Amino acid sequence: MADIFEVPQPGNDLLEKADQVRLASIIVNQTENYNRIEALNFMAEYLEKNTKEIINANNEDYARAEKKGISKALLSRLKLSKEKLNLGIEGVRKVGDLPDPVDQIQITRELSNGLILERKTVPIGVLGVIFESRPDAVMQISSLAIRSGNGVMLKGGSEANLTNTAIVRALQQGLNKSGLDENAICLLTSRKDSMAMLNLDKYINLIIPRGSNELVKFIQENTRIPVLGHADGICHLFIDNEANLEMALSVALDSKIQYPAACNAIETLLVHKDIAPVFLEKAIPLFNSNDVKLIGDKRSVELGLKYEASLEDWQTEYLDLILSIKIVDDLDEAITHIQKFSSKHTDGIITENVSTANKFMNVVDSAGVFHNCSTRFADGFRYGFGAEVGISTQTLPPRGPVGLEGLVTYKYFLRGDGNIVDDFSLGRAIYTHKDL
Amino acid sequence: MADIFEVPQPGNDLLEKADQVRLASIIVNQTENYNRIEALNFMAEYLEKNTKEIINANNEDYARAEKKGISKALLSRLKLSKEKLNLGIEGVRKVGDLPDPVDQIQITRELSNGLILERKTVPIGVLGVIFESRPDAVMQISSLAIRSGNGVMLKGGSEANLTNTAIVRALQQGLNKSGLDENAICLLTSRKDSMAMLNLDKYINLIIPRGSNELVKFIQENTRIPVLGHADGICHLFIDNEANLEMALSVALDSKIQYPAACNAIETLLVHKDIAPVFLEKAIPLFNSNDVKLIGDKRSVELGLKYEASLEDWQTEYLDLILSIKIVDDLDEAITHIQKFSSKHTDGIITENVSTANKFMNVVDSAGVFHNCSTRFADGFRYGFGAEVGISTQTLPPRGPVGLEGLVTYKYFLRGDGNIVDDFSLGRAIYTHKDL
Repeated sequence: MADIFEVPQPGNDLLEKADQVRLASIIVNQTENYNRIEALNFMAEYLEKNTKEIINANNEDYARAEKKGISKALLSRLKLSKEKLNLGIEGVRKVGDLPDPVDQIQITRELSNGLILERKTVPIGVLGVIFESRPDAVMQISSLAIRSGNGVMLKGGSEANLTNTAIVRALQQGLNKSGLDENAICLLTSRKDSMAMLNLDKYINLIIPRGSNELVKFIQENTRIPVLGHADGICHLFIDNEANLEMALSVALDSKIQYPAACNAIETLLVHKDIAPVFLEKAIPLFNSNDVKLIGDKRSVELGLKYEASLEDWQTEYLDLILSIKIVDDLDEAITHIQKFSSKHTDGIITENVSTANKFMNVVDSAGVFHNCSTRFADGFRYGFGAEVGISTQTLPPRGPVGLEGLVTYKYFLRGDGNIVDDFSLGRAIYTHKDL
Repeated sequence: MADIFEVPQPGNDLLEKADQVRLASIIVNQTENYNRIEALNFMAEYLEKNTKEIINANNEDYARAEKKGISKALLSRLKLSKEKLNLGIEGVRKVGDLPDPVDQIQITRELSNGLILERKTVPIGVLGVIFESRPDAVMQISSLAIRSGNGVMLKGGSEANLTNTAIVRALQQGLNKSGLDENAICLLTSRKDSMAMLNLDKYINLIIPRGSNELVKFIQENTRIPVLGHADGICHLFIDNEANLEMALSVALDSKIQYPAACNAIETLLVHKDIAPVFLEKAIPLFNSNDVKLIGDKRSVELGLKYEASLEDWQTEYLDLILSIKIVDDLDEAITHIQKFSSKHTDGIITENVSTANKFMNVVDSAGVFHNCSTRFADGFRYGFGAEVGISTQTLPPRGPVGLEGLVTYKYFLRGDGNIVDDFSLGRAIYTHKDL
């Protein structure tokens, strides 16, 4: 991220591209459900047809990146094997199977005789997606955008430029074949454009960042366009004194080690003082044998932890096999700690006492509040949304894991027969407000 | 608004107050529906009990404002007669009759055996409300805040400080009587605090500005807290060549003159060239006889308008008996004009051709798209929401007139029996995703 210093004003080239996407998005916006499903099928078909070109482009990206001495982790994310590509293509088709998020009627109401109000979901317009490396993201996010009737401007990591260009070309061929304007999917390849996107608030309605916490934080702080996403995921699990000990150990372990790099993995375990001795007696060897480094407050160090935590530990998303542990006097102290340090992503409690659980779940102001289960369930697929566009830690909706509904908004349609407001103030007409 | 120049950092006093509101809001947040209705009734009761003090305070505010030479319009908004106060008190009780926006279950889903997901509406937390003059706003917004389980920090115009203080004292007595923490309603009286509120993003979850376009614009540009509201309301009405002429005249007149200072009144009339001669022949005398000044493009001046419009006219919210008129070649030109100048509040079309109307309504990207009715219907009460918290012109929800649902968000509650994600990856458990 060292290369992101300022947000340049968009140049004329970029403004023109943005206008093309906007115009194309209006066409996608008008399509029926079957048009968009057909477009996805053609997109998948042209990805298949272009398999050789895409794989070749990826090989070249890979060779260049290797030469530049890019890290192994980045290289492995950059690599697009034929299997990965096929999975991506399958994914595009699957997005077509998701229920249509557009044209969902939320309100139909007679306001007065002959005056009918309808509130219906509509596409947002144009999405701006900024992601790092992984070329498979292009296929996924483009298909979600088209499924929901939106246009999309994409900017991926520059290491994957050739791959991304080949993929977008195939996707555009699919759009063309289905009669849609290919400009609805647009790839930016220069670093300057990618940052200038943040100033396109007249053209882009929602920014979706996919990448490191630093990237997300930078974007959130440097754009007036709404951002769907989250920076940190500092999640907590509180082991109450009335917890089932075996369950507490199993859920704590799963919440930490099942996939430690995920945002919904826990960083901090809060343990009620009355259960702490027996819990830690079993938890320390359990976490040790799973290579988890434990860092704790004074009291937990007294109970056998090796490393003492600093203030920074409670504020850090480790994304690694590291867990901080704090012993608390009671539920209130646990809640206070969470209110102070949680990033409002997901926080859980283990207890057999339902009223303790309810108090925790009502007071803790996070997108997800969990009782007796792993925080790792906080995920759009696991919630049954079929897709996950992002996870939002803001207070206002959309909040938590966001599926396709995060890519639509709504609009009020009012249809009358010459109705005027003056008739109501003169008593010649009355409001009926009858839901139909 | 000349006195707003910068946004100061909150001082310790303000931070302490904000924390008190936050803590009090957590208590309101926990209440049941009947608690909140009871609180509203006590708030109304104590407003009645304090009628004398409130009216006296208002008389003093009024006398001071008069001495300062404040404008007649401001003075009349400042004045709180006994009748206005009683209407306000009645309003507080009526808010109790609105359906509870909190605890509404949106999703109940079995994710797997014994693992139940629930998505429920919850209060947002703390609202920050900045309004000008009108002391009745204190009663209205405070009751909406309590109804929806939120705390609220209020800052009114300084001319009404004594009145607002007396009203808030009565409201707090009502909260106390009902067992809630009186700090849930907090009034700021210094100008410095009011602007520093915009930096309280750790304490305030939503800002609701009530006042001039300049105030709203300033707030939108100077806070990271989400703002519910809109600055301009530049609304259009397009008279298609297939319009019913009588209907077109009646709806156009109502949309302009029924209440010209409202945000949902039209500023611009777009007229299809084929209907323009007959339409203007009748419209010019009609608007003239209603004291509406007409300003138009070249073609409409040729058809009899006196004043020619400049670019600025298409961008101005007159909020007055002034109407700009532009003659367009067809629907597409009308849409293009709207896309360029609309503030995405409400735009309407008059036509007997349903497919023309549908195209207009689908392509125009405004919160409200109206067919054959007055734009003045764009209003929370007229939509049947029972209350209007604000009108939003942003693309993302909440959009358009916003009722109590704009003061709540949602949260995911996941309850299990020790469920862990690892069991699913090992095939020991499966997702059922069954809506209950």
